[in-house]
Order: sequence, then C-alpha cells, then structure tokens
Amino acid sequence: MPAESNVLELLARSRDLVEPQLREAVARLDDHTRLVASYHLGWCDEEGRPTSGSSGKAIRPGLVLLVAEAVCGSPGPGVPGGVAVELVHNFSLIHDDLMDRDTQRRHRRTVWAIWGDATAVLVGDALACLADEVLAECDAPPARRAGRALAVATRELIRGQVLDVAFERRDDVGLAECLDMAGGKTGALLGASAQLGAILGGADETTSDAFQTYGWELGLAFQLVDDLLGVWGAPERTGKPVFSDLRAHKKTLPVVWSLEYGGAVGRELADWFADPATPTEDSLRQAAVLIERAGGREWALAEADERVRKAGKALDAAGVAPANRDQLDQLAQFVAERQL
Amino acid sequence: MPAESNVLELLARSRDLVEPQLREAVARLDDHTRLVASYHLGWCDEEGRPTSGSSGKAIRPGLVLLVAEAVCGSPGPGVPGGVAVELVHNFSLIHDDLMDRDTQRRHRRTVWAIWGDATAVLVGDALACLADEVLAECDAPPARRAGRALAVATRELIRGQVLDVAFERRDDVGLAECLDMAGGKTGALLGASAQLGAILGGADETTSDAFQTYGWELGLAFQLVDDLLGVWGAPERTGKPVFSDLRAHKKTLPVVWSLEYGGAVGRELADWFADPATPTEDSLRQAAVLIERAGGREWALAEADERVRKAGKALDAAGVAPANRDQLDQLAQFVAERQL
Repeated sequence: MPAESNVLELLARSRDLVEPQLREAVARLDDHTRLVASYHLGWCDEEGRPTSGSSGKAIRPGLVLLVAEAVCGSPGPGVPGGVAVELVHNFSLIHDDLMDRDTQRRHRRTVWAIWGDATAVLVGDALACLADEVLAECDAPPARRAGRALAVATRELIRGQVLDVAFERRDDVGLAECLDMAGGKTGALLGASAQLGAILGGADETTSDAFQTYGWELGLAFQLVDDLLGVWGAPERTGKPVFSDLRAHKKTLPVVWSLEYGGAVGRELADWFADPATPTEDSLRQAAVLIERAGGREWALAEADERVRKAGKALDAAGVAPANRDQLDQLAQFVAERQL
Repeated sequence: MPAESNVLELLARSRDLVEPQLREAVARLDDHTRLVASYHLGWCDEEGRPTSGSSGKAIRPGLVLLVAEAVCGSPGPGVPGGVAVELVHNFSLIHDDLMDRDTQRRHRRTVWAIWGDATAVLVGDALACLADEVLAECDAPPARRAGRALAVATRELIRGQVLDVAFERRDDVGLAECLDMAGGKTGALLGASAQLGAILGGADETTSDAFQTYGWELGLAFQLVDDLLGVWGAPERTGKPVFSDLRAHKKTLPVVWSLEYGGAVGRELADWFADPATPTEDSLRQAAVLIERAGGREWALAEADERVRKAGKALDAAGVAPANRDQLDQLAQFVAERQL
C-alpha cells in the first residue's frame, strides 16, 4: 500500500524532527523521573539500557508538523508544539494506566506496575509540566495562543478520563455520552495537535479553528477504528490479544451503538454483558457475531468514514495547497484504515 | 500582636482579590471534578453544600499580590499569578495526600480518602491544567515569562516530592539532601510566587530574581518552622495532634540535623527511630527531649532566623519602597514566628 508507507515515512520524519527536543526536555528531570519517563517513551529498558525498539507512531507530533508545513511551508515552527503534545499524550497514558490498573502497554509493563503508584503519579505530573515549559520557552509570538489551546485541550482530555472512570460504575451509558467521552479522550488532543501546528505556523484564528476541527474529527475516526480493532483486530497487528476489549467487558462505541439501536439482537448482547462470568473463547466469538448482527460494526465503519469526510471538509475551509492537502488526506485515510 | 493581625489582614485582602477568578476557573471543570476541587478548597462539604469555613491562609497568592504592589503600586496585575500559584499548590497537596496516604488535611478527610485514587489523580491534574490556562489567558506582555517561571517551579516541586518518596525508603538521608528536598517542596513555589508578582508587576529579570530569592528563603523558613511545630507545636494551633511528626517516625529537618551533628545524643535518637514499635506518649516526650538536647531545636530556630535575614537581604537588592518593605518584612516575620 503506497499511501500507508508514505504516511509512515512522513510520521518518521516528524519523529526525527521532534525527538531531539523531546529528549532535551526529558533530560531536565531528576535521575529517577528521567529513567522512568525514558522507559515509558520506549528509549530504554527498566534499568536504563538503551533500546532500539519503536517508540510508537507519534501521530500527534506528526499532525502538528504536517499542519505547520501546510500553513507556512516548513514543519520547523511546529516542533515545540509537537514536543508539547507528545508530552501531554504520554502524561495522560501514564496516569490512565494507573487509574485503569492496566499492566501492559505496547507489549511492556506499565509504569505503575513496575515502580508503583507514587512514581506513576509523579512522572505523569512531570511530563505535563515539561509540556508547558517547552511551549513557554518558545519565543514565537503565537506561542501564548498555542499554550492556551493546549491547556484547554488538556482540560478536555482530563474530562474525558473523568467520564471514562464514571462510566465504569454505570450500566446505562448512552451513545451520546460515549461519543462525548471519545471526543475528550481522543478528539481533544488530536484537535489541539492540528490547531497548534496552524497557530505556530502563523495561521489566523479562523484557519487554526478549521485545522482543530480536522484533528478532532480524525481523533474520533481513530477511536472508532480502535474500538473495531478491539473486537476484530488481528493480534499480530494490534499488539493486543484477540477480542481484548470484549474480554475486559469494555463497552466500546460499536457495542454501545448495538445496545441502543440493535433491537432484539441488542438485548441479547446486553444479556451477554450482564453475565459476570469470565467468557470462554466460544462466548467471545458469539458476542462479536451479536455486535455484527446488531449493526454495530457497520455503523462504526460508516461513522469513521463520515468523520474522515468531515475532516476533509474542514481542510476545504482552511484552504490548503494541493501537495499539503494530499499529505493531510493520506494521514486521515491512514488513521481510518489502520490495520483493518 | 499587631504585626500578626496586620499580616492576616493583608492575606485576607489578597484572598478576596484572588478568589473570584479562582472560583471562575474552577467553574470550568465538569460537575464531579468541580465538586471535589471545591471541597478540597474549603468552599463546600462532600455533598456540595457551601461551607463558611476558612480556606487556609493563602500565603502564596498573598505573596504574589504584595510583591506586585511593591513593584508597580497595585496588587491588580498579580491576580492571575495568585490564582495560578494557588492552583498549583492545591494540585500538589491533592497528589501528595494520595501518595503519602494521608487521610486528614485541615481537620477534614482528604480527597483520595473520600473519592478514591482515580479522582485524586484527575482532580490534581485538572487544577494543574487550570493554572496554565489562567496564565495563558492573561494578556499582559510579561505573562509568558510568568508561565515559564511557574513551569520551572512546578518541575522543582515535583522533584521535591520525588525525593520525599525516595527518602521514605532510605535510612541514611543527610541534612544537605533534606534541605534540597525542602527547597523543592516549599522553597520553589514560594519563590515562584514572589517572582510572578514581580514579573506581572513589570519588573526586570534582575529584580524578579531577587524577589524569587526572597520567596525561596521564606519557604525554607516556613518549612523549618513547620518541622518545629510538628514536634513542639500546640495541637489547638497547628490543627494536628501533639508530636504528630514524631508519631509518624518522620525525619524532619531538626531530626536529621540532630542525627548528623548531635554526637552521642544523636546516636540515642537514631536508636529511637530504629525501634519499629509504636511509640508511647512517654517515649514521644523522650524523643522530643533528645532532639532538644542534641541541639536540633536550637539549630532549626537559628536557621529559620538566618533564612528570614537572607530574605531581607534579597529585598535590599530588589529595592523596595519603605511602606511595601514593611509589609514584606512583616510577612517574613509572620512565617518565621507562626504559632511558635
């Protein structure tokens, strides 16, 4: 797939531009915090020995830099924004893993699972703080607007996780609430990534708002695809066991849609979720079939497409040169078709 | 004591100036996060019913506003800084209580003790995020310098807590390390408070650095006095049980000094700390006598005085009009003599 390899190349280029400043920021931390942050970012093992492993796709910094380039012809001005969004993203991952008591991320043990709760709280706090520091150091005149946009997005991100935690204790969460949560947890920071790229590239507010919409819609498409992968994804591509979300009884977007709009099949699915017993492999396969028969899979696929379409419409409003437009469209396609 | 009542009046005036914007910031949070933050700030009970109780002395915002007034003749420009430091302070209290598993603060149950770990993580995160948002919204030209100063201080604050957590597992922490930790946990944010007041008041870097030193030294005096109160403070004034720090086997600054420089009596004190049994009231009184005989009490009193003297010297360098100087000296005296 040439489009995919093209996007991966663009993301790798962005990562190369952002990583030196990201490493420089992390180097300011005390020894212990720096070790843990470096481990979490995939730069070393638990003992601090450098690893050559991948440190994730870095979609958020990629988005910042591609948009900066679309706006001002060069990705350079976006670099501090790319560093800041990557730091905020990883702050939220470390705290979320702690709250959700997830023990694995990208095939490695999570921070709290290795170093305990206090370290996970503090390393997350430190990364959030570094994000502000990096943006506050940026001398470009629009840096304060960028700082404000990132703070608002971070507040949204936290609100999304507050909803996520609250929903775990509830049985009656509807689709609108779930989409609101996904907007906070995934839309806000991808929206801010595109917005920061535009702001730091020198765009006016109307243009940077249009890019924010592009990123936001991309974020929702991303989440929908993630939820599809959590049921139907191939383990060798997702890095998670097959049916991982179903196994955890997680009510993702296609599930919630099926429960709300799936009629009789939806009610069957509700019974499946109400059963507290650990599901067998057969039972998991059965649940996946129920979601499909209820229409949840089809809805999520269509909804992800619709979000990509809306992202494209936002780009129309932003007014982007054809070559840059092509890159941004490819990124949207990549997010929506990722490993499906 | 007219000086004390004067300082309390100044602090109350600052609180009145800062509180409307603080409440406005907290009002941006989602319902649950807002309730918990409002409870923590002393504005309501667990169910959200407004309380008339005190919400603490608010020394940090008071410091911001007094310094802003000293620099530009009016406390007004300092208000966003006062809001931001109070938010950062409370973010750190909520996360520290969680990490230290403290169940009480100011005679009330702590956030994690009522609402659990996830809420404590998220509400702390949200307050830290609001602090950035408030400063990023501030239109004054020096706001970015203020944002950077606050980010650096927050990083120091986090480093202080990292050391605190690490020291709990060690038996051999020396005085220099303990002072370093106190600098991070208390000096950094009081330093930033004075620094932000100066920056937002329009001071140049040399002047704002001098004010930062004033606040930093005040912070160390504050911590030394806090440690003295943790052994010899009257419960009705400190709000904590008598001998509270000793009961918790906490190695505070006077203790660490006594262990390091107290000779034979220091070694007796070390034996006392090595005994894992829960100390009786008699044994607690005995430990307090050992610290006094070893010289730890006298050292801490002298060191607090020395820090206040250094704070005064920093004010000499900053160049402050006599009336403002008087207020800042009184604040330093108040911190050093608080309830002793």
